[in-house]
Amino acid sequence: MTSTTTDHLAAARALDATDPLAAFRTRFAGIDDGSSDIVAYLDGNSLGRPTRASLDRIGRFLVEGWGGRLIRGWDEEWMELPFTIGDALGANVLGAAPGQTFVGDSTTVTLYKLARAAADARPGRSEIVLDTDNFPTDRYVLDGIARERGLTLRWIEADTSAGVTPEQVEAVVGPQTALVVLSHVAYRSGYLADVPAITRIAHASGALVLWDLCHSAGSVPVDLDAWGVDLAAGCTYKYLNGGPGSPAFGYVRAGLQNTLAQPIQGWMGADDVFAMGPEYRPAAGIRRFISGTPPIVGMLAMQDTIAMIAECGMPAVRAKSVALTEFAITVAEDLLSPFGLTLASPRESERRGGHVTLNHPAMRQVTAALWQRDVIPDYRDPNGLRLGLSPLSTSFEETYRGVAAVRDALDELP
Amino acid sequence: MTSTTTDHLAAARALDATDPLAAFRTRFAGIDDGSSDIVAYLDGNSLGRPTRASLDRIGRFLVEGWGGRLIRGWDEEWMELPFTIGDALGANVLGAAPGQTFVGDSTTVTLYKLARAAADARPGRSEIVLDTDNFPTDRYVLDGIARERGLTLRWIEADTSAGVTPEQVEAVVGPQTALVVLSHVAYRSGYLADVPAITRIAHASGALVLWDLCHSAGSVPVDLDAWGVDLAAGCTYKYLNGGPGSPAFGYVRAGLQNTLAQPIQGWMGADDVFAMGPEYRPAAGIRRFISGTPPIVGMLAMQDTIAMIAECGMPAVRAKSVALTEFAITVAEDLLSPFGLTLASPRESERRGGHVTLNHPAMRQVTAALWQRDVIPDYRDPNGLRLGLSPLSTSFEETYRGVAAVRDALDELP
Repeated sequence: MTSTTTDHLAAARALDATDPLAAFRTRFAGIDDGSSDIVAYLDGNSLGRPTRASLDRIGRFLVEGWGGRLIRGWDEEWMELPFTIGDALGANVLGAAPGQTFVGDSTTVTLYKLARAAADARPGRSEIVLDTDNFPTDRYVLDGIARERGLTLRWIEADTSAGVTPEQVEAVVGPQTALVVLSHVAYRSGYLADVPAITRIAHASGALVLWDLCHSAGSVPVDLDAWGVDLAAGCTYKYLNGGPGSPAFGYVRAGLQNTLAQPIQGWMGADDVFAMGPEYRPAAGIRRFISGTPPIVGMLAMQDTIAMIAECGMPAVRAKSVALTEFAITVAEDLLSPFGLTLASPRESERRGGHVTLNHPAMRQVTAALWQRDVIPDYRDPNGLRLGLSPLSTSFEETYRGVAAVRDALDELP
Repeated sequence: MTSTTTDHLAAARALDATDPLAAFRTRFAGIDDGSSDIVAYLDGNSLGRPTRASLDRIGRFLVEGWGGRLIRGWDEEWMELPFTIGDALGANVLGAAPGQTFVGDSTTVTLYKLARAAADARPGRSEIVLDTDNFPTDRYVLDGIARERGLTLRWIEADTSAGVTPEQVEAVVGPQTALVVLSHVAYRSGYLADVPAITRIAHASGALVLWDLCHSAGSVPVDLDAWGVDLAAGCTYKYLNGGPGSPAFGYVRAGLQNTLAQPIQGWMGADDVFAMGPEYRPAAGIRRFISGTPPIVGMLAMQDTIAMIAECGMPAVRAKSVALTEFAITVAEDLLSPFGLTLASPRESERRGGHVTLNHPAMRQVTAALWQRDVIPDYRDPNGLRLGLSPLSTSFEETYRGVAAVRDALDELP
């Protein structure tokens, strides 16, 4: 608590000056171009910023693709887009060989399809394991599936400032476990789960594992094939900058695909899409996990962030992410702990994803005050200020301004 | 068969000159602006054209909405978009009072959610009624639901050049019927079903009815509330020009909503979205039919076509549609019947939707030849050339050019 705000600002500028990813920030729209009033955007893990390349890509697509090719675009390119983008995600972000990743429905619908397929693939097993602090949609989807399939939810009590450990999973899985569903990075605390260890433990009991990658994809290295993961799903509108409500990705391990049947049987997942035969026969391979017509316009923007990650590599993204969260915590410890604020994320960076949560009883008011001054973090009950630091678009100075604004807001509390 | 092609072209131009909706055509991108090579676009019932207003709207949204408002956009506007657009569709296109229509998932997923909810709401009833010529996704979705819920599919044998009659429905419904699922306009023949009569018949047996409006919404007047329809779903990328893969709409009659539970329980359909409580409690009203984060970018364009329909009214749209299909049939009968081509759509316009199907044994080759010369109709097995005449964007001259090109292609067949 001996540093001054001037010291922190100087430190931020020094970090920006030597940041090997600094140039990527200039590729985003709305930063330093007068089109936005935002002083600090610290919610990239809720909704990432658009890249300039995506603005160009979408504009071009509307005129040349949709308007110019019209229905011909489906044959020429769009039918394969769920899989070509899926493969690019697999190669650059998820550690997945081709033919295992697809893009199409919302995260909720994707989770539903994969969890239903997995639960149905383990007949005779009666339980789905999940944790009390998983994101609501995951819990709600599994609650619905459990009721309709006559299964029981087996809850792991998660530490809301940390997350689920291998030991906790070991304690609940067994021959009754059909499926384990957990998040790689906890949406509240940012806790980074040990995916390979937990996956091994679940497999030893004969269960399948579905990982929610919403808060890790594009921020934390993921190595699905090497980790032996069965199924995964995740958002593309957070660190992958796909735009509001852009469709989720799903991953199904190659060896598992043809043993699974997903519940929403649509024409795009059928064996021969345009045969339109009397009976549904699922396509072989990853296509069977698609249902309806893919949302092409919503799938455009994520390609530009995947391309940037291909350019710099996930290790560099992770290094920047760790540096950002470490810096945010250091400044927060110095400027904010006098106000009684506590860290609700893991202190050790190896167990921390790309965001940091700070707790304070008045955090709801603080967040409202921050929004008033165009500093945009997120708020999560109870009492949590969540700083989402998107590695490709967030600078250290922006991070500093955000934390300093929290201090000012706490200072001005009535 | 006494008219010459010159007569038909002159007739087309005369019809265009007096078409009260002619000015709407100039509001579409890619028509007479040099950005497209298309000579005649006759597939507006597969993928509608973009409007210029939509290009502007999306461009503006990317910079000012996504890039400018970022996460704040959800609170300010986007959270309600599935329902504000739904209400606009209801008022101007579907004959539905507010609070009964939503936009969000693909057509397939929407059909799945509504059909599952309906089937589950009729416990003890064992059958779902459908027809052999309904669109594949409808049949596949219902096949999946029937298997998972232990129900039987009761098939109506549909005339592929016509459609399902009230008498056919009367013959199969009874106390065993949980749900009847049919299309308002048949995707192959364009047959226009008698929705109010069939709905009354289904209701008399105690069944619920789900209408697929994919090929009618934006082309044929729909009056869901007055017709007493329970549930409906439809595409927005056809006559509503929402763009490739734009999300579907769903309709649930107000009095039915709180008695139904849909299977994909996501955070956006929960009672209090940001409470993120431990248990899923469905929202009251139409919100409970939403699952995940709505695809905002994909929901933008349809608003401009809804606004055009609000401006001119569905009766004018239908009048133009009938005139277009009538003109296409007249020219086809004259120019194409010498080649042995037959009409596979109803001849009387009261039983015909917005597209016309023409059969010929060589139609697959003919369609390929047409695409080669940038005349774009659709092909449907068996042997069907489908002319989709989008009332707001298609001219009579374009329709003439399309039919004349079919004649040329038939003439040049080896």
